[in-house]
Amino acid sequence: MNNYQEMWRTLGLNMEAHDQLLQVLPPTYHDVYLTQANRPQGMEYFDFVVNEIHGLRIQELQEHKKAGGKVIGAFCVFVPEEIVRAAGGICIGLCSGVEIGTAETEKVLPRNICPLIKSFMGFKLGKVCPYFESCDIVVGETTCDGKKKAFEILNDYIPVHVMETPHMKKNRDRRLWLEEVRDFARVVEKATGHTITADNLAKAVQEVNNKRRALQRLAELRKQDPAPISGKDSLLIEQIAMYDDVARFTAKVNALCDELEEKIKAGQGVFPRKTPRVIVTGTPMAIPNWKVPHIIESSGAVIVAEELCTGLRYFENEVAEDGQTKDGLLENLAARYLGINCAVFTPNTGRMDRLLQLVEDYHADGVIHCALSFCDPYAVEANRVEKTLKQHNIPLLKIETGYDQEDSGQLKTRVEAFIEMLG
Amino acid sequence: MNNYQEMWRTLGLNMEAHDQLLQVLPPTYHDVYLTQANRPQGMEYFDFVVNEIHGLRIQELQEHKKAGGKVIGAFCVFVPEEIVRAAGGICIGLCSGVEIGTAETEKVLPRNICPLIKSFMGFKLGKVCPYFESCDIVVGETTCDGKKKAFEILNDYIPVHVMETPHMKKNRDRRLWLEEVRDFARVVEKATGHTITADNLAKAVQEVNNKRRALQRLAELRKQDPAPISGKDSLLIEQIAMYDDVARFTAKVNALCDELEEKIKAGQGVFPRKTPRVIVTGTPMAIPNWKVPHIIESSGAVIVAEELCTGLRYFENEVAEDGQTKDGLLENLAARYLGINCAVFTPNTGRMDRLLQLVEDYHADGVIHCALSFCDPYAVEANRVEKTLKQHNIPLLKIETGYDQEDSGQLKTRVEAFIEMLG
Repeated sequence: MNNYQEMWRTLGLNMEAHDQLLQVLPPTYHDVYLTQANRPQGMEYFDFVVNEIHGLRIQELQEHKKAGGKVIGAFCVFVPEEIVRAAGGICIGLCSGVEIGTAETEKVLPRNICPLIKSFMGFKLGKVCPYFESCDIVVGETTCDGKKKAFEILNDYIPVHVMETPHMKKNRDRRLWLEEVRDFARVVEKATGHTITADNLAKAVQEVNNKRRALQRLAELRKQDPAPISGKDSLLIEQIAMYDDVARFTAKVNALCDELEEKIKAGQGVFPRKTPRVIVTGTPMAIPNWKVPHIIESSGAVIVAEELCTGLRYFENEVAEDGQTKDGLLENLAARYLGINCAVFTPNTGRMDRLLQLVEDYHADGVIHCALSFCDPYAVEANRVEKTLKQHNIPLLKIETGYDQEDSGQLKTRVEAFIEMLG
Repeated sequence: MNNYQEMWRTLGLNMEAHDQLLQVLPPTYHDVYLTQANRPQGMEYFDFVVNEIHGLRIQELQEHKKAGGKVIGAFCVFVPEEIVRAAGGICIGLCSGVEIGTAETEKVLPRNICPLIKSFMGFKLGKVCPYFESCDIVVGETTCDGKKKAFEILNDYIPVHVMETPHMKKNRDRRLWLEEVRDFARVVEKATGHTITADNLAKAVQEVNNKRRALQRLAELRKQDPAPISGKDSLLIEQIAMYDDVARFTAKVNALCDELEEKIKAGQGVFPRKTPRVIVTGTPMAIPNWKVPHIIESSGAVIVAEELCTGLRYFENEVAEDGQTKDGLLENLAARYLGINCAVFTPNTGRMDRLLQLVEDYHADGVIHCALSFCDPYAVEANRVEKTLKQHNIPLLKIETGYDQEDSGQLKTRVEAFIEMLG
């Protein structure tokens, strides 16, 4: 711990505020995670990663930087990690799921804005995030008004490169997005001082695809009844996917899947057979925002899939590996990322089709739509989800909530009533 | 009036709700507009237009439709009226500035969303807007998340064509936007059954430019001290610009300017010389949203310019008239419209430069930034405005408010304190 104190001080963290933050996490984690019954042994690694969230992984980033490497932060699943890796960089997800630095943040942002945006701004202004302070550059995008405009302010504190995600998926949008991906490659080459080649890009594509395949394998196992792993544990793994070492993470997820396959063969699961099965859809749930999943799984249901950015949207499509040239691979990347069913797109019919498919494939009894407070893209699109599911007689519960715990009791009552109706 | 009743019934309006709406407007209009001192005689026409807001103008639209013409509704200054006119159509602004149909609207939209969006959805769901009910098609855009996603829902009730406004002004965005403008021309041709030609488009460009020039002429006269016209009256004219007959409106604005020029020569104005001068900037103020301007001008200041969509952004740039071909003119149109300083763009530095220029040109003592509640693009960009104005020691008051009157007292206190500081 002493080593980390020195590291955090060197990073310029506000030590007092940071200490307070670190004291909040362990009891929450204990209550939400460590009290679960029948947890797979393979979760030990992910418990360790959370325990070392501001320790070991930050140390690895610092060692990487000492060796001349760069760290690039991102806020969105649209930022192609492959490009950063090809140039020898490390890509880190910076979205954050806890109220912090609110007083400072409300000096530069409106009070009524998405808690995820307030949170990342609070972490930066309050100097309490060692990931942020390890970044050489951060990459924004234009997936929502709040982030798009907040990045202009963030740029006062750290250099921000913004990728323009279009609003539609027409050919003209695909062309624009491909140019954005090419620009990003140039920005990363400049920041890292390394040239991206067909070879190092092909290798990076394969590594990140392997990460996706491990997560797909895990998702596939969750189609079983009884569920071999809780939704909370699965979400945690999907959250960790965004900042852990790629090769190590991939190996650990695959090892966990080996264990789960054995359990499935033995007919074992973490909840009784016939437990009501729920799919969660909506806005990202960034660490440590486990609020709604915890309510759901402590109310008698199991979450079997997350149609979220911290979930399937992150890993469900692979990048084609057949590009023979650098530009061919960049085209494959652009195509893969534009396939994401984000509510930035109008209309976002792909998400509706996907949800129906997921309900069928995962034998779900109902869907819970979770939107962060003041998130217009998802809160309005919830109406399209509602219309689609109603047409197919699939039960839906719509929730809008922030990072505070004030509405927990009310949410639990609503979730319990919904699950009772499913059972 | 009996004629109108019949017309409204034929349009399928909810007669009871519509009657209630019509009873609200006159007393408000009296208090806000008709009690102003020294009003120019030329305002009589605009008073008449407001008085006939659901009467004569709707009758004109119906006659146009009986003769085979089409009516196209729009929600944004990005929709090129010229294209509609070239094809013999009438383009009508549908943004609305009053709380209506809230109960119905909150069944399809989140409660915490911009009041302008709630209002247009309420007008449509409640069947209380004869403009909406006169439209053959409505045209949306992607200037903000709320509207972009709400148009998907609106499309359940009336056909919506969405134009994709990009997030930036790079060459790739200009290319995309030009394609959107070309698409729109095709959509309008199909809807109207009329071909757009170089000739009819050139004529439409000239007519709409003439409207802009009349509004520019009016704006120019407001640089005088004493101010020859109130900000409230100017805003009203800018609001009416979006739905009145183009040629008649242009002539009436020019006639008003003739009168104002005489008053200026005579040293006459509507407020005493040396009255504190304020520029209003932010989100659109749709009829009958005169709340903040009324507070400002009843608190001892005069508004000398509106850096708003219902203001300078609507008329400050002309379309180049030198295009010899249809496609050349479409290129000119695309270029003009992409010059708008909308907060959809990141960054929107053009707006900052423009504001500084306006403060100088209009001899303004301060700026009041008005954002509609829950409007992320403008509420967040307000921070950039604040930063820019602070660097130039220009006083700024930031307001966030909706269409209700609940905060009027509090706003008046803040505005009075601000104006006292300027005086």
